[in-house]
Amino acid sequence: MIIAPPAQIGASIDEIDTPALIVDLDAFERNLQKMALYVAKTGVRLRAHAKTHKSSDVAKKQIAAGAIGQCVQKVGEAEALVNSGIQDVLVTNQIVGAEKLRRLAKLAQRAKIGICFDDRSQVRAASEAAVREGVRIDGYVEIDTGMLRCGVKPGAIAAELAQHITQASGLTFKGIQAYHGSAQHLPTAFERRAEISKAIAFVKETQEALNRVGLDAKVITGAGTGTFRIEAESGVYTELQAGSYLFMDVDYAVIKDESGHDYSEFEHSLFVLSTIMSVAGDSWVVADAGLKSYSGEKGPPRVHNGPGLSVVSMSDEHGKIAVSQGSHKPVLGEKILLIPGHCDPTINLHNWYVGVRNGRVEEIWEIDARGASR
Amino acid sequence: MIIAPPAQIGASIDEIDTPALIVDLDAFERNLQKMALYVAKTGVRLRAHAKTHKSSDVAKKQIAAGAIGQCVQKVGEAEALVNSGIQDVLVTNQIVGAEKLRRLAKLAQRAKIGICFDDRSQVRAASEAAVREGVRIDGYVEIDTGMLRCGVKPGAIAAELAQHITQASGLTFKGIQAYHGSAQHLPTAFERRAEISKAIAFVKETQEALNRVGLDAKVITGAGTGTFRIEAESGVYTELQAGSYLFMDVDYAVIKDESGHDYSEFEHSLFVLSTIMSVAGDSWVVADAGLKSYSGEKGPPRVHNGPGLSVVSMSDEHGKIAVSQGSHKPVLGEKILLIPGHCDPTINLHNWYVGVRNGRVEEIWEIDARGASR
Repeated sequence: MIIAPPAQIGASIDEIDTPALIVDLDAFERNLQKMALYVAKTGVRLRAHAKTHKSSDVAKKQIAAGAIGQCVQKVGEAEALVNSGIQDVLVTNQIVGAEKLRRLAKLAQRAKIGICFDDRSQVRAASEAAVREGVRIDGYVEIDTGMLRCGVKPGAIAAELAQHITQASGLTFKGIQAYHGSAQHLPTAFERRAEISKAIAFVKETQEALNRVGLDAKVITGAGTGTFRIEAESGVYTELQAGSYLFMDVDYAVIKDESGHDYSEFEHSLFVLSTIMSVAGDSWVVADAGLKSYSGEKGPPRVHNGPGLSVVSMSDEHGKIAVSQGSHKPVLGEKILLIPGHCDPTINLHNWYVGVRNGRVEEIWEIDARGASR
Repeated sequence: MIIAPPAQIGASIDEIDTPALIVDLDAFERNLQKMALYVAKTGVRLRAHAKTHKSSDVAKKQIAAGAIGQCVQKVGEAEALVNSGIQDVLVTNQIVGAEKLRRLAKLAQRAKIGICFDDRSQVRAASEAAVREGVRIDGYVEIDTGMLRCGVKPGAIAAELAQHITQASGLTFKGIQAYHGSAQHLPTAFERRAEISKAIAFVKETQEALNRVGLDAKVITGAGTGTFRIEAESGVYTELQAGSYLFMDVDYAVIKDESGHDYSEFEHSLFVLSTIMSVAGDSWVVADAGLKSYSGEKGPPRVHNGPGLSVVSMSDEHGKIAVSQGSHKPVLGEKILLIPGHCDPTINLHNWYVGVRNGRVEEIWEIDARGASR
């Protein structure tokens, strides 16, 4: 079934059908520019992560603001971006399976494509796909930075894998993928700094091992919204992969900054607009957005500008909102904005962003990589 | 972007692209038949809930097996079903907003449509929409069964709302919506029985109040997979709204039955097929399915037939699987089946079910109401 946009350009907020994914364009643009300015100042490059936004429209805005390209997790995401004209895409993890590698190699006929490795057999498989399609693909060695997920051990083992990439037809050894995902959400700046310091040491160790075998990682890529300044100022990382900075979410709002305050480097610009569908409860109301409009694994969304209102349970299509004593109890049909617990999987539930400024719908962007998990 | 099916009919399991939503057709059909037989024996009717399966193909199988129609939560789901020829759809909650009510009334030109109320103003709004489109819509009073979400208080207040429905042009008062969602997942059969007993008492109280004002609820509708036998055997409920029974999930697997054993009334028939994408870790592997392929708010999925394997962290597109000492460590490219934590929001992430029997893809069903949250 085709899902139509929930509003037309020019509509007022009240005319937007709900649930709808809303972007506060002023806040979004401030976030976009703030990161662009920071990156320009430090000299690292931004390769923003499309797994967050899942939209060629948003990717183009990042590139227009100076990003050198995009990161993705999946071939399907890369296809959406390249089909819309994006020219430089790095798959920030492993792609396993001959058919997926064939699709990726096909994309390399039209764009610069990179892929990460943490296993020799995968180098061979990607090389075969590249040769078959007559392309070159950039190969990155992913090292385990301490997040204990994908990636080989830093140092000699990583350098050995890089040699395999160098020797493989159709592949160009380009650099090191050194992303530390779990560090992004550590509660204090001290903990985040400690974890990323270890990651930086692992990168240095790997760079030295590469040099010993006559190789050099031209690109060191990693970092997310919670730690990007640390990587950028390390003197080691050359590319940042942040994505959530555009939108932010409750998961990022609860971590603390260097001063111990709530992390407010960027503003909440992403919301789920929801309509109050039931006011029969004494001390609660029910909104028409649930687990199919926002992801719940990081906890419930927050009510934006809703003092005394808190989402206390999430059903498939209902959100129950407790109204504290003395607070305004929303009326039937009233619209509220919810700040999602976790932006990436929330966006993946929707087909359209509705961009709003001064209470009017100004832009509608397609989430063209929604569901592109293959 | 159009998401193509992850396999073709006739393919082997190994040829299915991942992540993919898999249905074990044998288990699915046993679940379908088991509920159909039970319902036929007790004399209650099954109005299965499409919010679980989101697919006209699945709805038609339920109806072919004896279900009298379907439940939905959203107008968009009702549209998908009616467009595919389903003739009897009950919206099991409130629909707020003139445009949504207009769409619903339009559907009533082609199918039997019901809707729930817990507010007088909504009765008026639905009546206006029905009159405008020249249709009749069945109206149900939703009572709060003790789950403290939507619904008016049982008894006189509910009867008063029923009178409003009776008096409203274009609406036919049909019955009582008395679903208790949170009771479905209470850990013990004793707790579930205690909660549903209260719901049954609330229904009786409401039926008596209706009779006092000369009304009669012809339909008492509710129940889910965790409690349906209690409602069915109450002598009060006439329709069951179960949905998850077709597929099951970890959330249902952890509750206990009357004997204190794990709840096994129905079999797991729904899985997310995933490929091992990284084996670089010492004591873990990483699969290519994360929060964009299964919902995580009820906890991680379980590895099916994977002794010693447990999903220990969920990222957007990664699932980290710990391998206990002495267990088989999956190899790169190996495919594993994951039992989702919560079936409904998991299904809503996918566009296709891949039906498998004897290791071969036998059927592919479209999830045509995926994302139909408006």
